[in-house]
Amino acid sequence: MVIVMSPDATPSDVDAVVARVETAGGRAFVSRGVSRVIVGLVGDVDLFASLNLSGMPGVGQVTRVSTGYKLVSREQHPDRSVVHVRGVPIGPDTLTLIAGPCAVETPEQTLAAARMAQRAGATLLRGGAFKPRTSPYAFQGLGELGLKILADVRTETGLPIVTEVLSAHEVEMVASYADMLQVGTRNMQNFTLLREVGAAGKPVMLKRGMNATIEEWLMAAEYIAQRGNLSIVLCERGIRTFETATRNTLDVSAVPVAQRLSHLPVIVDPSHSGGRRDLVLPLARAGIVAGSDGVIVDVHPDPATALCDGPQALVEEDLTDLSRTIEDLSVYMGRTNPTRPLRKAS
Amino acid sequence: MVIVMSPDATPSDVDAVVARVETAGGRAFVSRGVSRVIVGLVGDVDLFASLNLSGMPGVGQVTRVSTGYKLVSREQHPDRSVVHVRGVPIGPDTLTLIAGPCAVETPEQTLAAARMAQRAGATLLRGGAFKPRTSPYAFQGLGELGLKILADVRTETGLPIVTEVLSAHEVEMVASYADMLQVGTRNMQNFTLLREVGAAGKPVMLKRGMNATIEEWLMAAEYIAQRGNLSIVLCERGIRTFETATRNTLDVSAVPVAQRLSHLPVIVDPSHSGGRRDLVLPLARAGIVAGSDGVIVDVHPDPATALCDGPQALVEEDLTDLSRTIEDLSVYMGRTNPTRPLRKAS
Amino acid sequence: MVIVMSPDATPSDVDAVVARVETAGGRAFVSRGVSRVIVGLVGDVDLFASLNLSGMPGVGQVTRVSTGYKLVSREQHPDRSVVHVRGVPIGPDTLTLIAGPCAVETPEQTLAAARMAQRAGATLLRGGAFKPRTSPYAFQGLGELGLKILADVRTETGLPIVTEVLSAHEVEMVASYADMLQVGTRNMQNFTLLREVGAAGKPVMLKRGMNATIEEWLMAAEYIAQRGNLSIVLCERGIRTFETATRNTLDVSAVPVAQRLSHLPVIVDPSHSGGRRDLVLPLARAGIVAGSDGVIVDVHPDPATALCDGPQALVEEDLTDLSRTIEDLSVYMGRTNPTRPLRKAS
Amino acid sequence: MVIVMSPDATPSDVDAVVARVETAGGRAFVSRGVSRVIVGLVGDVDLFASLNLSGMPGVGQVTRVSTGYKLVSREQHPDRSVVHVRGVPIGPDTLTLIAGPCAVETPEQTLAAARMAQRAGATLLRGGAFKPRTSPYAFQGLGELGLKILADVRTETGLPIVTEVLSAHEVEMVASYADMLQVGTRNMQNFTLLREVGAAGKPVMLKRGMNATIEEWLMAAEYIAQRGNLSIVLCERGIRTFETATRNTLDVSAVPVAQRLSHLPVIVDPSHSGGRRDLVLPLARAGIVAGSDGVIVDVHPDPATALCDGPQALVEEDLTDLSRTIEDLSVYMGRTNPTRPLRKAS
Repeated sequence: MVIVMSPDATPSDVDAVVARVETAGGRAFVSRGVSRVIVGLVGDVDLFASLNLSGMPGVGQVTRVSTGYKLVSREQHPDRSVVHVRGVPIGPDTLTLIAGPCAVETPEQTLAAARMAQRAGATLLRGGAFKPRTSPYAFQGLGELGLKILADVRTETGLPIVTEVLSAHEVEMVASYADMLQVGTRNMQNFTLLREVGAAGKPVMLKRGMNATIEEWLMAAEYIAQRGNLSIVLCERGIRTFETATRNTLDVSAVPVAQRLSHLPVIVDPSHSGGRRDLVLPLARAGIVAGSDGVIVDVHPDPATALCDGPQALVEEDLTDLSRTIEDLSVYMGRTNPTRPLRKAS
Repeated sequence: MVIVMSPDATPSDVDAVVARVETAGGRAFVSRGVSRVIVGLVGDVDLFASLNLSGMPGVGQVTRVSTGYKLVSREQHPDRSVVHVRGVPIGPDTLTLIAGPCAVETPEQTLAAARMAQRAGATLLRGGAFKPRTSPYAFQGLGELGLKILADVRTETGLPIVTEVLSAHEVEMVASYADMLQVGTRNMQNFTLLREVGAAGKPVMLKRGMNATIEEWLMAAEYIAQRGNLSIVLCERGIRTFETATRNTLDVSAVPVAQRLSHLPVIVDPSHSGGRRDLVLPLARAGIVAGSDGVIVDVHPDPATALCDGPQALVEEDLTDLSRTIEDLSVYMGRTNPTRPLRKAS
Repeated sequence: MVIVMSPDATPSDVDAVVARVETAGGRAFVSRGVSRVIVGLVGDVDLFASLNLSGMPGVGQVTRVSTGYKLVSREQHPDRSVVHVRGVPIGPDTLTLIAGPCAVETPEQTLAAARMAQRAGATLLRGGAFKPRTSPYAFQGLGELGLKILADVRTETGLPIVTEVLSAHEVEMVASYADMLQVGTRNMQNFTLLREVGAAGKPVMLKRGMNATIEEWLMAAEYIAQRGNLSIVLCERGIRTFETATRNTLDVSAVPVAQRLSHLPVIVDPSHSGGRRDLVLPLARAGIVAGSDGVIVDVHPDPATALCDGPQALVEEDLTDLSRTIEDLSVYMGRTNPTRPLRKAS
Repeated sequence: MVIVMSPDATPSDVDAVVARVETAGGRAFVSRGVSRVIVGLVGDVDLFASLNLSGMPGVGQVTRVSTGYKLVSREQHPDRSVVHVRGVPIGPDTLTLIAGPCAVETPEQTLAAARMAQRAGATLLRGGAFKPRTSPYAFQGLGELGLKILADVRTETGLPIVTEVLSAHEVEMVASYADMLQVGTRNMQNFTLLREVGAAGKPVMLKRGMNATIEEWLMAAEYIAQRGNLSIVLCERGIRTFETATRNTLDVSAVPVAQRLSHLPVIVDPSHSGGRRDLVLPLARAGIVAGSDGVIVDVHPDPATALCDGPQALVEEDLTDLSRTIEDLSVYMGRTNPTRPLRKAS
């Protein structure tokens, strides 16, 4: 931790800072510049954080040098992790496709979407039973009925299920159906939910908050990890900017940045970031070559009747392209597509 | 609702849109421009929203003309509302000061802060027992013990309590102590929480999400209102922008804009928006003359030891200024400060 | 300057940094933490900046502690400055109203707007002869003819003229008419223009770039000051955020923040920030009580026919309100309205 | 153009709108909804824009349906364009690498960087002689001397030159050396410069403003096109967001979006967007597979001594990777790298 004193700090202000740090068991090194004094702290950063040094007289700026997260940090864990979802790996050696309908609507629609996903090479099925919607008048999902449909489709297709949980008190119930629990962008800082999900014993996909810095995202993952669950996959799904041509702005830089800061796998969601079907493939490709460990997309057998996010769902005719993209770029990036035999890019 | 067809839409694309609308019981008016066709829809907007018109071939852009919220909209309810918190009004004729510590730490600190708040003219006491913190290693609040402290301080001072609830399953417990439930910025789109809070029978303070548009904020309020609770106060607390000199950017324009769109009271939080003690008074004044119905601030008897947000807490010597500001600007804005006798600005 | 070395920096990396600093004539203090080494530099910051320390092996993060601006900094110049525009002061003791049409259209319209401005208490006349427009098909201003109209209206009304200059090569010509040169938001980092304007011998109003941090804004002012011109007034005119309900978001916090960092006067533009006539007065009030040294607004005798920004122009019936606002809040903020006799707030 | 009237608009307000449109030679279609009236306009959109309809009583919202740009729009020009820079093509069939030093410092450094660029497969040389710098104390470039160095290096290497011009009055001089004129992010809305550059008879690279929407970017290109110059290449170089982990956020979605709206080539700048050497390759790859027509990168023989943006410059050891990336992904995206023989991805 580094403290920069204000230009008008007095010598006794500096002494008081040093005293507080040393009383708490740390060491403080004072460097006197022409117009400012800098104090470097050595010791337990969390302890220092609790000393409220920024509130002391004469303190200008307090900069935390080490990161606030530990369990998910790559500093402590240089090898990148692999998360397994009912046997399906997500990590540095593979490129995992997760696909399915934005919302579970009917058994038929869900099965049809799952079949589409599977044809495209997906090894995990996504599908929402509980939908967070900006408007209370929009379709809110089928709830537990939707989970039962997903479970039936899993039986039918063999695809493990990734599904969103919205509430701490529903985690246990959702986890009894799901193979992987999704925490959505609006809940990235719902800390109660993060703790419950951390305790549920299932892998978690943590979407980045649409206004969250990468550091806040990793801190949110740390909440889950603290409960003993390190099976966390980070998902970049677009951030909110001033641009209105796309629903959100896919922050493709976040993939390598987060992978350098954390050992956790990072995937991208090109459907929700662009919000437009014609952008899904270009953004999927961009995410993959930026180093993404997987891709999650919406597919729908009939987007014109979709109850949620129809405009961004891929349709049958997009699947061959998607499938080839995943295969070719897996090879290009030196990854194995987990369910497909290798072949050269064409 | 207005639909603008793509330049390459065919006549049968247009016919299909008209047919879908009319089948659903609406009416569609077609205007043919030089390069585009525009279809104006008349009828039930929510019905139209469910038709997924944007997914139909040839449809370029679908614009919702009426707002998505109804119960909180001012269109349906031209008079601005007054919300009462245990008898204390928040609304267009008053200027309510809500003050207290960011976090409840001890009985002594909470009582001292409440006394400070009261001296400054506050008629409601804020104080957090459940604290949402970016880092899992930061102080998370005292939980129910904190609520008991608040209840004791209420008995001592007579100040009704405003306190945050983080989880749907804790709403009932928190509501058994609180006079007003606060939904924080990170939970503005925690729809499960919004619904529970709507059903709890207590007034609600809904903080704006730091990345939420005004429209999304009003939609979040609509979730609460749908459960029969219209005792909602909106609180602008700063939005996230590119500027790093302040913690957030107080969007003072949001006060008059939200008041024109909704009948609900709107207050400002100058402590969390600026994140700096020296900005609290200027931002409080700015909020008030922009038309705010109240102000919520952090006070602390000893910010240097505060466990949460010490740098922004007002201290004893700020209170006279705060008190005079509230009084003078109440008069200037033609409002009555609910607990103080009127006097002229000096 | 403070350098935080990477966790994997070697001792020889640290030595190399120290050697480069000391060779250049500075001093370096090394603090060794548990996992990181911190190097505090003492000496000429600009010299250090030229050493490209952040590119050296093992260097993690380089933080500049002193500000990059000097001439406009308040650290060197604790008293706030007053800028005089043909005798009209803008500074800490007054509250200056600048008003006029967004664009000069005709002699009649300009004179009518100037009379409106004067009735509202304005002591400076704004008016654009060169208009920066997003679309090349929009009205671009009358050019030099517009300046002649402004000069005639100055003769008629006695109001000094504030007008925008768009190009370095037009500075001399525009300065031959204008009493104050305006640099617009899109040109805040047009450094060629800043230098010319700095050399022109006329006071300058520097609008904040809609995406500029406060630090960048002050650095832009430093470009002007470097040419020997310290008659600079900073103007906050709204920043670009994700919110679309207003044209821009007035960053009212920027007023006190910039005034603490710089001795230059700071004013607000409530017309361009909100972009809506109904927001001009609330935002003007907010800016004033946040400490603004003045207000600049658009007025138009007939906004329905305005060639530029009609929707935000104040009309005749707003003027009494505006005038009273300025007078009352001047008194409240302890300022003298330069052209009006004092009276108590009513 | 579509006009949505306010809920409280009177029939005579609607009539007045219709009358103004029809007097101006347009046609207006009125659709009456339950609570609102919608007026669709057919005719010359620019004419309608000049009528200031949004300022008329009862008008709620005016939406422009067609785009404001024409010459650069793809609606009028469905085939994507190729821009030639001294014979080097940038367009849909090729993938052009532009590389060189951020700033020209010495003849030796420039030549060394050019040789590096050429080894990496670059067919155009970038290099700044006039540098726009946030601080007036930072290195501002060598000016015309830098252009002479670039010209000598062109003679030596055969690489045509891309260089930035900062001022309208320097366009002619810079154009006498340059093969392509660059307009930087801070000047994207420097309309005087855009017009001069449009008239200079050289191809132009127009960087996106860091806060510009895609629509504003295309409008800026329209300013250049209006002067008869359609040899414009758009360059996405990162936008400003709340994220501070990267210098800017590369908006990779902007590539396909801009290519759908405009026929102009679009390239990406992975050096300035990320601001970090370790992000250049991942972002270059992302841009290419999103459909970019080229890539522009900084290279430097010794970044530790670079006078500008050293931390993001590629060094010798990155070049093989860069070169292979460009080659492999050219093939993958079905493009021909203009200067290299084709080979299969390995």
